[in-house]
Amino acid sequence: VAQMNTARETQAAKAEQFRRWHNGEEILILPCAWDVASAGLFEAEGFKAIGTTSAGIAASLGYADGQKVPFEEHLRVLQKIAAHVRAPVSVDIEAGYATTIEGVTANVREVLHSGVVGINIEDENHSRSGGQLLEPVPFMVQKIEALRAMSRVEGVPMVINAKTDAIWLSVGDGVEDTFKEAVRRANAYGAAGADCVFIPGDLDLQTVSQLVKAILYPLNIVVKAGTPSVATLHDLGVRRVSLGSGPMRAAMGLTRRIAREVLSNGTYQTLLELAIPFDEVQCAFRN
Amino acid sequence: VAQMNTARETQAAKAEQFRRWHNGEEILILPCAWDVASAGLFEAEGFKAIGTTSAGIAASLGYADGQKVPFEEHLRVLQKIAAHVRAPVSVDIEAGYATTIEGVTANVREVLHSGVVGINIEDENHSRSGGQLLEPVPFMVQKIEALRAMSRVEGVPMVINAKTDAIWLSVGDGVEDTFKEAVRRANAYGAAGADCVFIPGDLDLQTVSQLVKAILYPLNIVVKAGTPSVATLHDLGVRRVSLGSGPMRAAMGLTRRIAREVLSNGTYQTLLELAIPFDEVQCAFRN
Repeated sequence: VAQMNTARETQAAKAEQFRRWHNGEEILILPCAWDVASAGLFEAEGFKAIGTTSAGIAASLGYADGQKVPFEEHLRVLQKIAAHVRAPVSVDIEAGYATTIEGVTANVREVLHSGVVGINIEDENHSRSGGQLLEPVPFMVQKIEALRAMSRVEGVPMVINAKTDAIWLSVGDGVEDTFKEAVRRANAYGAAGADCVFIPGDLDLQTVSQLVKAILYPLNIVVKAGTPSVATLHDLGVRRVSLGSGPMRAAMGLTRRIAREVLSNGTYQTLLELAIPFDEVQCAFRN
Repeated sequence: VAQMNTARETQAAKAEQFRRWHNGEEILILPCAWDVASAGLFEAEGFKAIGTTSAGIAASLGYADGQKVPFEEHLRVLQKIAAHVRAPVSVDIEAGYATTIEGVTANVREVLHSGVVGINIEDENHSRSGGQLLEPVPFMVQKIEALRAMSRVEGVPMVINAKTDAIWLSVGDGVEDTFKEAVRRANAYGAAGADCVFIPGDLDLQTVSQLVKAILYPLNIVVKAGTPSVATLHDLGVRRVSLGSGPMRAAMGLTRRIAREVLSNGTYQTLLELAIPFDEVQCAFRN
């Protein structure tokens, strides 16, 4: 029991530290891993915290994105990543892999037990029940409150990053309406206890600036074509920037280039130019 | 039972086809996957058969190479890859993840049951018992004979690619001795029933040419810096060329470049330049 308490206290301290980084001097850069090797590499390169990409993990296991991976299979990857790195790990578990608040809470409790200290939880309505792209605000608020209560009981102040897909899914009637819906949801989720709000989508500098002004809580955005530099995001007041599935998609893009060069030209220049020695791959994930 | 027989017959036909490619007009190019996404991508790009990299799978799961992954965990990845692609799948299972012939045979039977039609089996002595880098030739011959017998009983003519690490581990007293040991082993393994012999290492054009002349069975080599082009290998008489862990190490090399650019410069150029749209990642592994 003493050992369990110590482990839980370490996890709680890690969660607290991770939360503080959302309100510190620096903007938090979160790289998103899709397997243990990428997680270990990101940590070895010096990122303070490690995220995961649900889309990347799904692809790596052979599934489409959107909660198509059986939860237990997804969880196994999260557990391995959390066991491997020392840095705080925050995971993207989409809408929680369940339709009820109880189901989502049970799943997140399992995630928490693996040593993870933060989650992304989103409002996309994966079943499209009632024809709605997004879950009703009160349901998402209840979900956040239930997760906050569960994490209190567990003694780990888990960092909840509440994601609204309002802009991502172009909800509402035109750009202005979409923007308002995103802000309304972000503020409701923050008021419900989320530590950070996450708004994915193609956001130009002006939109990012307007979001920061309209939202009362730390804002997380994800890198897309046209995303301002980290320094600019910091100056605008963004608190957290995620790499999302980008690195995994780039790794696949490179693999495709390697494949095409070998098949069309019979040469290996792309492979040889980028490949790092295996010792370095191993060093990257063992520290 | 009828359905099982049909599945087994399909697998047998696939194995036969894969074997024929080792003796056809063209040289066989085998890309080596480390997860389902990379396997699906290689198939979508047009490779006729898909290999796996044990080192890459190990890294992706957070282990060093050299049979450090629990066999069941490695097997789970092989099963998922074999279930996902239609092309013949040949897997690298190092020395068979067991110290006895019976243990290796039981493991390979499980691999065969997952739909895989070919294996790499190597002579590295992972326990270094007796201080030997390589298993004794008679033991490796027994292993190959046992696997051939098992595959006969199972009704699937599994393609056995017997790998000698003689050159890779610089066994023997000097370059000439190492070369002779590699040739002696390759010919013994072929005589024992291997369909192809695999000699990894940094092999220049002259060495490759000498190996082809001295070995009586189809020869497989792996791409390293300085490896002749596919066309040249074909002209030299090499029957199969593997990409090994190269693509996985290149994917990690790119991920590291992305990480370093974001951390040192606060920009995402490498990520954005190489990342393919997520739809294309999904298309790549779903066909």
